[in-house]
Amino acid sequence: MPRLTLVKIGGKVLDDPRALAGLLDDFSALPGARVLVHGGGKLAADLAQRLGIETSMVGGRRITSREMLEVVTMVYGGLLGRQLVAGLQARGINALSLTGADLDLMRAHRRPVREVDFGYVGDIDAVRGEALHDFLSQGIVPVVAPLTHDGAGQLLNTNADTIASQVALALADRWEVHLVFTFEKPGVMEDPDDETSLIRVLDPAAYARYREAGVIAGGMLPKLDNAFAALANGVARVYICQAEALPRLYQPDFVGTTIQA
Amino acid sequence: MPRLTLVKIGGKVLDDPRALAGLLDDFSALPGARVLVHGGGKLAADLAQRLGIETSMVGGRRITSREMLEVVTMVYGGLLGRQLVAGLQARGINALSLTGADLDLMRAHRRPVREVDFGYVGDIDAVRGEALHDFLSQGIVPVVAPLTHDGAGQLLNTNADTIASQVALALADRWEVHLVFTFEKPGVMEDPDDETSLIRVLDPAAYARYREAGVIAGGMLPKLDNAFAALANGVARVYICQAEALPRLYQPDFVGTTIQA
Repeated sequence: MPRLTLVKIGGKVLDDPRALAGLLDDFSALPGARVLVHGGGKLAADLAQRLGIETSMVGGRRITSREMLEVVTMVYGGLLGRQLVAGLQARGINALSLTGADLDLMRAHRRPVREVDFGYVGDIDAVRGEALHDFLSQGIVPVVAPLTHDGAGQLLNTNADTIASQVALALADRWEVHLVFTFEKPGVMEDPDDETSLIRVLDPAAYARYREAGVIAGGMLPKLDNAFAALANGVARVYICQAEALPRLYQPDFVGTTIQA
Repeated sequence: MPRLTLVKIGGKVLDDPRALAGLLDDFSALPGARVLVHGGGKLAADLAQRLGIETSMVGGRRITSREMLEVVTMVYGGLLGRQLVAGLQARGINALSLTGADLDLMRAHRRPVREVDFGYVGDIDAVRGEALHDFLSQGIVPVVAPLTHDGAGQLLNTNADTIASQVALALADRWEVHLVFTFEKPGVMEDPDDETSLIRVLDPAAYARYREAGVIAGGMLPKLDNAFAALANGVARVYICQAEALPRLYQPDFVGTTIQA
């Protein structure tokens, strides 16, 4: 199967024009088929603040009010997606910006209200991989925003890491998918404050040990559970690394965590 | 050649959720291949105002500052385009939202500064009709936002009427293109205040007469010059009508102005 590199970017890279330009250079230089999945960085929160929209968080997760949904639709589906595409076109990469509503790419249902009402947040039901496959086989790069729809006219806000994993899974039957999560640290660390403690390779056995020892904990657990689930379902490799590590992704001197089954 | 209906919407229809829902119903019921081109309505100006961004106008045309370009990228390329697509998906129409940067669809150059610097406004150089044709031949409906790019990473603001005409022209070699400009009046009127004065059919000879007599003047002239240019270059028909007239477009009791060569 031909190789496909799916890169998820977010946070600092999107907030810093110079870092973003570097990322687009590196992404454009990657060999083979590519997909770019982007989060929203601070731009959505900044715009909400300028508009006087309160963004409430529960347990580290943002509640998406109707007004906040409009903000993320503008920022993710408009500003960021279109600017990324214009930047890729300038680098000779034929790209297009897609949300889950476009081509019915990602259908979701609004998350049921249990203890918390997350508002207009969607949990994905289906990804139409064949729509992406058609673009990829023509050399076109899909740029995917973290927005889904419910099929009844409602857009929904969906976590960009989840989108990246689900898109990777939907393409794994026709592509050798390498899924890259860019991260602020060099990768999964034994000690987050010690740059030399990078875990270069993580397999299920090592993950179980680190987990039991409490070395890997907190917000990294759902990320890694997701990664291993992707590997179990046909994704070839998952990487966690800094955006700056992208040019060495397929080289022996790659700096980052490679997650393998 | 198969028939293609290209509908340009703007203004009031986009600002009124109920009118927009009706428009989407009517658009979805049109026979054959379709393209939807949208302007921005008042939403962009409203958002700019909420953000304290001044929008300056010269001779009825908006100056697009860098900040205003971000606003229209968010509103046209994000909020409106994605909501229109979600609304069409809910009606069983497989659609996607495109700007000129996506798939390099519409390349433009920044308008040269003569008496006025219009800012980030693009004049179109090329429309890649084959990209749209690929979608259309699969039954997919392109929803086109009035944004172009310069190929060097810069998005540009471009008039939606111009986009509609240029897209129509780019498709005219493979489709029998019917180009519909929705309008606030029932069509081109002999007397704008008299609803019974609708001009039902306008050909070049009649246009010349109305023009000489001063019956047709002002902002309608560039619209109609554009329309006749489209007809001269292979577009089958141009219509100016209210959004509400769309269901009767191909019927003998259609209420609107049909422009023909």
